Amino acid sequence: MMAGTLFTIGMGPGDPELMTVKAARLIAACPVVAFFAKRGRTGHARSIAGHLIAATAEELRFDYPFTTEVALDDPSYACGMTQFYTTCATAIATRLDAGHDVALLCEGDPFFYGSAMYLYDRLGDYRLETVPGVAGMAGCWSRAGLPFTHGNDVLTVLPGTLDAASLLARLGQCDAAVIMKLGRNLAKVRVALEQAGLADRAVYVERGTMADERIMPVRDMTEPTCPYFALILVPGRRRQR
Amino acid sequence: MMAGTLFTIGMGPGDPELMTVKAARLIAACPVVAFFAKRGRTGHARSIAGHLIAATAEELRFDYPFTTEVALDDPSYACGMTQFYTTCATAIATRLDAGHDVALLCEGDPFFYGSAMYLYDRLGDYRLETVPGVAGMAGCWSRAGLPFTHGNDVLTVLPGTLDAASLLARLGQCDAAVIMKLGRNLAKVRVALEQAGLADRAVYVERGTMADERIMPVRDMTEPTCPYFALILVPGRRRQR
Repeated sequence: MMAGTLFTIGMGPGDPELMTVKAARLIAACPVVAFFAKRGRTGHARSIAGHLIAATAEELRFDYPFTTEVALDDPSYACGMTQFYTTCATAIATRLDAGHDVALLCEGDPFFYGSAMYLYDRLGDYRLETVPGVAGMAGCWSRAGLPFTHGNDVLTVLPGTLDAASLLARLGQCDAAVIMKLGRNLAKVRVALEQAGLADRAVYVERGTMADERIMPVRDMTEPTCPYFALILVPGRRRQR
Repeated sequence: MMAGTLFTIGMGPGDPELMTVKAARLIAACPVVAFFAKRGRTGHARSIAGHLIAATAEELRFDYPFTTEVALDDPSYACGMTQFYTTCATAIATRLDAGHDVALLCEGDPFFYGSAMYLYDRLGDYRLETVPGVAGMAGCWSRAGLPFTHGNDVLTVLPGTLDAASLLARLGQCDAAVIMKLGRNLAKVRVALEQAGLADRAVYVERGTMADERIMPVRDMTEPTCPYFALILVPGRRRQR
């Protein structure tokens, strides 16, 4: 029997209509649909796919072993995640070996800070196809009405998990910037934006393209923390042509 | 009469199946479809839309006034482009005033180095909606099988039009990098990659996701120039989890 193909599929920024035509086709066709989720939640990628998943499809739900109860720099975090990804990859391999195609759903674009990459790396002996998706940041800058990079602009994408000095150094030399992974890093990022002189043009976007999105100047976002998947956008040097 | 809405629509990286479900719906529904093209060519965004455009739709084709015959730093270039964008915006405004919705098609994502931003800026008095698209770079890294940014990686997107010293300085401190706008800048970019010690892991992608795509290590791409829309990808610090 021929083994199945693993389709690693970007689901886009959140609005189900912003998935690609190819993503919609493959999700409906695959007999196995896999996705990550936080324990007790629906799973964001799963909720975007919604009704597209066939009623007869097997769903493989992978619950992250930790959310915030183990620190990122605790060795047990790395060890636990390694075991977790290996278990997930084994579950997928079993279905591929049985000849079934598997759709692995990912928020945004799979190769852009996605957990799915750790399964992709483990399943290199199988046929793999990756379906790119609209990045969360593109959904956010479209909804915020912020033309983002022009001409010779350099775009820098920074994780908010960087330390304050690194953030400031990077922000000091960017034309356009996106700051991801905010969550508990929000206050540190806000200070770095002020110090870099960029707070004036920085915009906070939470759940962009979704029904409950929030968009505001970063100075108006005074709450101490925010969802992990919120973004801050610093548009480039908007030029008049 | 109520004026129409301008939908600025990202067409994705090239494969028509990589446009969003929303893009496909709006293109089919709009009575006016506008796009940029090089003189004598089909227009890349138009060719992606293909058969989706209604037979009864009006097509507004905007031919760029220059391709390479006027240098970018020649004042007549800036002046000519300003006049060109104003003429395009006026043509769209006429249709919006007549109550027609207009779909403006853009390669990749509209707010990511797109010409459409210059029309969007001129048409701020109308109802505007931007439909994000899959970026060319995401199409390319998916096809090249390159998981791109992990964990704390910083992504830098650089236009190849930067001077050699700026390119080298930026490449010297990036985790992951995408170099766009190659064309006649290819040789300069190749030298900068060697000097920054990144040539080993740099991959050249031309027309990614399309039938005639070419993907190879950058050192194998020895031609003196390449298409303007080719990319070089330097994936981030691929980590084992």
